[in-house]
Amino acid sequence: MNRTDLVNNIRRKASFLCVGLDTDIKKIPAHLLDDQDPVFAFNKAIIDATAPYCVAYKPNLAFYECNGVKGQISLEKTIRYIKDNYPDQFIIADAKRGDIGNTSALYARSFFEYLDVDAVTVAPYMGEDSVKPFLGYPGKWVILLALTSNKGSHDFQMNHEDNGNRLFENVILKSQTWANPDEMMYVVGATQGKMFSDIRAIAPQSFLLVPGVGAQGGSLEEVVRYGITPDCGLIVNSSRGIIYASAGQDFADAAAREAAKLADQMKHLLDEHNII
Amino acid sequence: MNRTDLVNNIRRKASFLCVGLDTDIKKIPAHLLDDQDPVFAFNKAIIDATAPYCVAYKPNLAFYECNGVKGQISLEKTIRYIKDNYPDQFIIADAKRGDIGNTSALYARSFFEYLDVDAVTVAPYMGEDSVKPFLGYPGKWVILLALTSNKGSHDFQMNHEDNGNRLFENVILKSQTWANPDEMMYVVGATQGKMFSDIRAIAPQSFLLVPGVGAQGGSLEEVVRYGITPDCGLIVNSSRGIIYASAGQDFADAAAREAAKLADQMKHLLDEHNII
Repeated sequence: MNRTDLVNNIRRKASFLCVGLDTDIKKIPAHLLDDQDPVFAFNKAIIDATAPYCVAYKPNLAFYECNGVKGQISLEKTIRYIKDNYPDQFIIADAKRGDIGNTSALYARSFFEYLDVDAVTVAPYMGEDSVKPFLGYPGKWVILLALTSNKGSHDFQMNHEDNGNRLFENVILKSQTWANPDEMMYVVGATQGKMFSDIRAIAPQSFLLVPGVGAQGGSLEEVVRYGITPDCGLIVNSSRGIIYASAGQDFADAAAREAAKLADQMKHLLDEHNII
Repeated sequence: MNRTDLVNNIRRKASFLCVGLDTDIKKIPAHLLDDQDPVFAFNKAIIDATAPYCVAYKPNLAFYECNGVKGQISLEKTIRYIKDNYPDQFIIADAKRGDIGNTSALYARSFFEYLDVDAVTVAPYMGEDSVKPFLGYPGKWVILLALTSNKGSHDFQMNHEDNGNRLFENVILKSQTWANPDEMMYVVGATQGKMFSDIRAIAPQSFLLVPGVGAQGGSLEEVVRYGITPDCGLIVNSSRGIIYASAGQDFADAAAREAAKLADQMKHLLDEHNII
């Protein structure tokens, strides 16, 4: 999906919400466990319930890989289901991959050819030749880790380097020489609040994928205040706060309610910033 | 596998060779393509041929994931085959994972419970809480990326930070406060030559997993000169140089020959350093 289509979807749906499909077999409602593929049954219900309120889905690969072959099947069915039924949804494989060139090329093949998702999250530690193989697929995106939402983001990402920038700033600056803002986004955690203005100073146009609203405590208002651009430039993810809103029979309705609540806040914010 | 057993295997076999199972369906000999699972058939032959000369196998996950469910099956069969037939081999899942705590915990479950390998490679960018969930499994190891073998290692890993160290040095220093040398190793590319003495200055006891000998151009002699410890402290990987030594019917024999050649050099080096 190219940037124009993504932005049109955001405007049309008045939402920049991404629903994180971090589906843990140990947390899904008991009545689904009799299903042949409980993870897919859960995802299908969540997707049908939340699709009106979001523009993107983000399965986190860890939650599928831990079930081995069965998990891989659940993942593939989930992606296929979204593509077949909600082709306007942007699909992000949250995989945080990155390896030497010939290996990254294979990961790119996995995500952009085999699974055929729109975007994949990539870790920057190994540098340019670990990222470049993911680029050059038309309509596909790299989402590079910049400043993550977790406590450990302070261990290395915030280190000051000898050119005066912090590591995450050098990641953003250098990676913009590899790719343009129509093919690369950055992960910036909602928990990082005012850092968004520092990031907008060096990446004024890039889309940011923002995890950490909800369960991790980030503020949507703050993210928008410091991070929004004239074409929105934000995809805000919520996983646990939506998909585990209820552990009962009503889990899908509860998920829809939480997604609608966030979408409603987003509509007001988009309106306030004259984007819709 | 704990450190004592690993070191005993190295001494007994007079080898610290790891064979990288980077098995690309597009590169395996044509006569195997009729097999029901050509990737596994290839791996099985390579393993049987090379097991006398190595102490470890390292499947790189990218090469399996790009075949989807089929690839996952090939990977699981390969790991099972090694465990059943060569229980003295140390198995490394080269996955370069790393995510927020609850997600890394699931990756750890995938690798250490479901696949039950001995070690997994982990990317350090997201810091302590992305690494810690992999620790605490008895006999299992984290192999943290420090200084990789590729050109892109110069993009961020070699950046000087304001405490005077380079990023990879800060990764090694800080991560040693999270784990001891009996549960954490570091990836250091053979292409980095004399950097090994800088690394031994700050990680005198840690095992180093060293890719980049062979196809990538690193020198075994140089790695040993600057990197060896009294109990060896090195696992040197070769992938393409061994497994694709021949594209014909004789691929397994050719792989054995290349592995034996490296093992022979290693024997001399171990002898020279009074380790055997």
